[in-house]
Amino acid sequence: MGRETSDDAGVYRLSAEVALVQTVDFITPVVNDPYDFGRIAAANALSDVYAMGGRPLTAMNIVCFPVKDMDKEVLREILRGGLAKVHEAGAALVGGHSVEDPEIKYGLSVTGVVHPDRVFTNAGARPGDAFILTKPLGTGILATAIKAGLVSDEVQRRAIEAMAMLNKKAAEIMVSYPVNSCTDITGFGLLGHALEVATASKVAITLYAERVPLLPEVLDFVRMGLLPAGSFANRNFCTGRLRQAGSIDPMLLDILADAQTSGGLLISLPEKSARDLTDDLRAHGVPCAAVIGRAGAPSDTGMIEIA
Amino acid sequence: MGRETSDDAGVYRLSAEVALVQTVDFITPVVNDPYDFGRIAAANALSDVYAMGGRPLTAMNIVCFPVKDMDKEVLREILRGGLAKVHEAGAALVGGHSVEDPEIKYGLSVTGVVHPDRVFTNAGARPGDAFILTKPLGTGILATAIKAGLVSDEVQRRAIEAMAMLNKKAAEIMVSYPVNSCTDITGFGLLGHALEVATASKVAITLYAERVPLLPEVLDFVRMGLLPAGSFANRNFCTGRLRQAGSIDPMLLDILADAQTSGGLLISLPEKSARDLTDDLRAHGVPCAAVIGRAGAPSDTGMIEIA
Repeated sequence: MGRETSDDAGVYRLSAEVALVQTVDFITPVVNDPYDFGRIAAANALSDVYAMGGRPLTAMNIVCFPVKDMDKEVLREILRGGLAKVHEAGAALVGGHSVEDPEIKYGLSVTGVVHPDRVFTNAGARPGDAFILTKPLGTGILATAIKAGLVSDEVQRRAIEAMAMLNKKAAEIMVSYPVNSCTDITGFGLLGHALEVATASKVAITLYAERVPLLPEVLDFVRMGLLPAGSFANRNFCTGRLRQAGSIDPMLLDILADAQTSGGLLISLPEKSARDLTDDLRAHGVPCAAVIGRAGAPSDTGMIEIA
Repeated sequence: MGRETSDDAGVYRLSAEVALVQTVDFITPVVNDPYDFGRIAAANALSDVYAMGGRPLTAMNIVCFPVKDMDKEVLREILRGGLAKVHEAGAALVGGHSVEDPEIKYGLSVTGVVHPDRVFTNAGARPGDAFILTKPLGTGILATAIKAGLVSDEVQRRAIEAMAMLNKKAAEIMVSYPVNSCTDITGFGLLGHALEVATASKVAITLYAERVPLLPEVLDFVRMGLLPAGSFANRNFCTGRLRQAGSIDPMLLDILADAQTSGGLLISLPEKSARDLTDDLRAHGVPCAAVIGRAGAPSDTGMIEIA
């Protein structure tokens, strides 16, 4: 489903106190500026480690680049952007590998550490949990609109900053709360990843569509028909397992299915702690964090209700 | 230099007892059979960890594949070959990432462990050291000849098995000896990697060209002019820093420069222990191991003499 597929990060126990969390992710350019692309690809790759509650230690560059046919300055800018994010993550760049390729691709192999008893997965959500999303949706739709030349500089900047933003702060804050499950929103969209949580955790999930934070103008571009193929596929894939509580704008449904690059974390925890975590996130560098759903009884396991 | 370039593996100290050794490597197909390609690409990626004296713990697949245009059975065979080598290495496959790409590429991101005080590098060779090479040369030349349809099944099989062979045994055996330096022979060829050792270790190295183990028929194919572009580039790159003690067959020089895929280890240790290590290697699964050189006085730092 979608152009890129990614396995979840792997966990390897080194001792009773330390486990390695490892992930590899690399993507084709989603924006024109090579420095921004490097930042986004690195943030996207680091995200899996954050989603598991881990702290990135090391990263290695993965590069496909047309060395013979393109200005190497472009490659330098991509790597400079990636390195900025590796440093922001507090990790060390310890190597990498590049191959000649007509099509640019960039990403990271990331190793982090986590306490083996404190690994967050998408299988821990419990009935009664509230779901918090930490970044606004719509990066897939906006990337398509940007390629079509329809997006103002200001909105483009907002989309780029959303994608380049590390999930570091959100991860650092959430570990002090009684989090039951966490995943990051990427190629399957909010709907697809929420379905994975519902299935793995054996719960039903209700999403409050109107409360989901959106990037600016996303709804306008969807109304113009600018839905990326991957997002369209996501929506079709999820249809059979959706139930709509009332009349939902179908355009909003498209956005919930929009394939994200470097999306936010989807965190679940007992409802009574959700307000505090949301406030904490908003006050400390995660301004768009919002409660956007709730886990229901296991009678409807693996279903999503849109309310 | 060459189509692929690879940084050395990175070392990250976790504690006084444990350091992570990490490397990432992926390549385009060097043989036609997808299962064999998977084995070779994985052995090639794992090699950097062995060269540093490490033990592989985890691996993640890195895949570029034309999912839409090619039978997925090919991909399954590549991954099956890679997994066989990951298992043989005693490592766990903990994830991976794949992207749609017209050109197949496959490899691994590998994490191993090593005692931080026992990391082998290419900078430790000392005057008086003997150099041992653990695999025969000529995989680049044979791969070119195989593509031209000139190689018998038997010789092809020998080349494939040489490339698919892990450097595991050699690494496990050498750690019991007073090894001063180690590197693995890949894209820069024996000459290029020996030059790196000479430069990093501040020694001159004499290579005994006639003692270097070769794959069958390699010399015949070089005489036919079948030198890959990367190997040709390697030879030109090294020329200014070579000195020939006597009259050396220039074809042999081409083979010393031949870009290897998943080549052997080049190990240096005090001459008095070299015979024992060579015997030990040959007796325990590394049949081609041979003493092929010697480190000389630092007056000729960074030079290679061919004797």
